[in-house]
Amino acid sequence: MMSTSALQGVFAPILTPVDENLAPDLRRMTDLAQELLANGCHGLVIFGTTSEANSFSAEERMATLDALLQAGLPGDKMMVGTGCPSITETVALTRHALAAGCAGVLMLPPYYYKAVSDEGLFRFVAQVIERTGDPRLQIYLYHIPPVAHIGYSVSLIQRLHQAFPEVVVGIKDSSGDWENQKAILERVPGFRVFTGSEGLLLNNLRHGGVGTICAVANVIPDKVRALYDNWQAPDADARQEALMYMRQAIAPYGAIPALKAIIGYRRRDLGWKQVRPPFTPLSAADTEVLMNVIGEAKVMTA
Amino acid sequence: MMSTSALQGVFAPILTPVDENLAPDLRRMTDLAQELLANGCHGLVIFGTTSEANSFSAEERMATLDALLQAGLPGDKMMVGTGCPSITETVALTRHALAAGCAGVLMLPPYYYKAVSDEGLFRFVAQVIERTGDPRLQIYLYHIPPVAHIGYSVSLIQRLHQAFPEVVVGIKDSSGDWENQKAILERVPGFRVFTGSEGLLLNNLRHGGVGTICAVANVIPDKVRALYDNWQAPDADARQEALMYMRQAIAPYGAIPALKAIIGYRRRDLGWKQVRPPFTPLSAADTEVLMNVIGEAKVMTA
Repeated sequence: MMSTSALQGVFAPILTPVDENLAPDLRRMTDLAQELLANGCHGLVIFGTTSEANSFSAEERMATLDALLQAGLPGDKMMVGTGCPSITETVALTRHALAAGCAGVLMLPPYYYKAVSDEGLFRFVAQVIERTGDPRLQIYLYHIPPVAHIGYSVSLIQRLHQAFPEVVVGIKDSSGDWENQKAILERVPGFRVFTGSEGLLLNNLRHGGVGTICAVANVIPDKVRALYDNWQAPDADARQEALMYMRQAIAPYGAIPALKAIIGYRRRDLGWKQVRPPFTPLSAADTEVLMNVIGEAKVMTA
Repeated sequence: MMSTSALQGVFAPILTPVDENLAPDLRRMTDLAQELLANGCHGLVIFGTTSEANSFSAEERMATLDALLQAGLPGDKMMVGTGCPSITETVALTRHALAAGCAGVLMLPPYYYKAVSDEGLFRFVAQVIERTGDPRLQIYLYHIPPVAHIGYSVSLIQRLHQAFPEVVVGIKDSSGDWENQKAILERVPGFRVFTGSEGLLLNNLRHGGVGTICAVANVIPDKVRALYDNWQAPDADARQEALMYMRQAIAPYGAIPALKAIIGYRRRDLGWKQVRPPFTPLSAADTEVLMNVIGEAKVMTA
C-alpha cells in the first residue's frame, strides 16, 4: 500500500547560501525556497549534494531545517538528505526530519567506504530503519556512484523494497546511466524512481518514473516543471534539450559554484556566490561568460 | 622549528570494538590500547580508517576518546582522526582532541566530494586551522586515495607546509604508491612522513621517514616495532616480509573484520568480531582459515 503522502514531481535540491562566516544564510535560503515553490517545484530536497549537505555538521543541518519550517515552508513538500557514513548520525538526522514533519528522507549509502557488500549495505539500511523506529519513515535511496563510488545495486533495491515495502519506497538515481534507471523501473514494481540526471527526465516519465530531483531546478524550475507537465506533448524533446543546455553550461565550473553564481548575478547579490571549501566561488569573469552562455548576461558580449 | 612533541615510530590505528548494540566497547578498547602500547607501539591513532572512524557520530567519537583518557591512556602518545567532509565538524573534533591533551590530529580531506581543486583543499585546511585557533595544533594530513578518492598532492603538501610550518607538520601516506611517498620525502624537507602501507615501512625509514601508522600493528605490534628498531640490520628485508604476509592474509576479508576476528579468536572472545554495517563480521569458517594462514589456528588443518 502506497502512502498517500508519496512524493512526486519536480524537486530542487536547494542550494544552501552561506554568509560571510560560511554559516547557512537563512534569509537568503528561505527566499529561494519560496521562489522555487512558487515557480514550478512540487517540493524541495533540503541537504542534497547540490545543497553542499556534507559540508555542514549534523547540528547545522538540523538547525537549518528547523529555521526553514519556522519561516513557514511546508514540511509535507520536503525531502531531507540524512544519509551519512555512520548509522548513528543518519538516525539522528532522520528522526529529526520526521519529528519536524518532513515527508521523506533521501539516504546516501555510507559513502566513506569502498568495496562494501550488498549484504553490508542491507544491514546498514535495516539498522537505520530499526533504530529510527517511526512508522512515518519514508526512505528514498540516494544512488550517486559518480560521487559516492558505492551505491545501491538493482538487486539490493529489490531486496530492501521487499523487506521494507512501506518504508523503502523510492530512489533518486543520479547514476547518469539510463540502463540502470530503466532496470530499476522495470524490476522494482511500485518503486518511486526520481531521476537525478536532468537529461533523463523525459525517459523517466515515459517509463513510469515519478519525476526528478535535479540541480538545474534551482535556476530553471519553470522549465523543468513545463517538461514534467507536458512530457506527452510534441515539443517534449525540445523542452528536454533546454534542461540539458543548462546542465552543460554549468558543468565546466562545477554545479554548486555555478548555480550560486547565477542566482547571485540575477539578484545582484554577490553574497550568494559564497561556497564552503573545498569549493571555490566563481570569479567575476567566469560568471560573466556563464551568464552569456545561458543568455542572461546584462551586457551581451557575443 | 619542530615541536618537541613531534610523533614518530610505530602507531596502531586502533580497532574500535563494539558491544551487542554496536556502541563502542570501552573495556575491550582500553584493554587493546594498553596491550598495544606494552607490546611495541610508540603510540595510537584513535579513529583512523581501521578504527571504523566514520562509522561513528562526532558525539560517539568524542565520548570514546574521553573514556580512553579517563582510563589512563596517555594523550601525548595519541593522534586523533578528525577529518570530516564539513569544516565545522572537523573543527569540533579537532578542538576536542586538543583540549583532551592529544598530541596531534590526522586529517582526511573532505572525502564526500570528488574533482575538487588543490586551491579548494588548501582553503579547507586553512579554515580548519583558523577556526581551531589553538597554537598546540599539529596536523598530520591523511592521504588515502584508494578510499577517499581525493587527496593531498605533493604540491599542495608543499604549499600547506610552507603556509603553516608549525601546524601542518606531517602526513600519513596510504596511497600504497612508493613513488608518491618518495616524492613527499624528497620535496618537503622536515615533513614527518608516516607510511600507511605496511609494505613500504623499510623504504620509508631508509629515505628519512618517521615510521608507520598501519592496520597490522593492531595484531603484530611487536613485529612492526622490531622492523622499526632494526631497519639497518641484515634481516630487515625478512622482517618487512613478515608484515606483508599479515597484510596479504587479511586482505581477502577486508582488514577491519579480519583484524577483529583475529583478536577475538586469540582472546576466545567472540564479542570482538562485531563490526558496524556496512561491514559484516567474519564467519567462523573464514576465521578458522585465516588463523591457519597466519599460523595461529588452535587446531591446524594444514
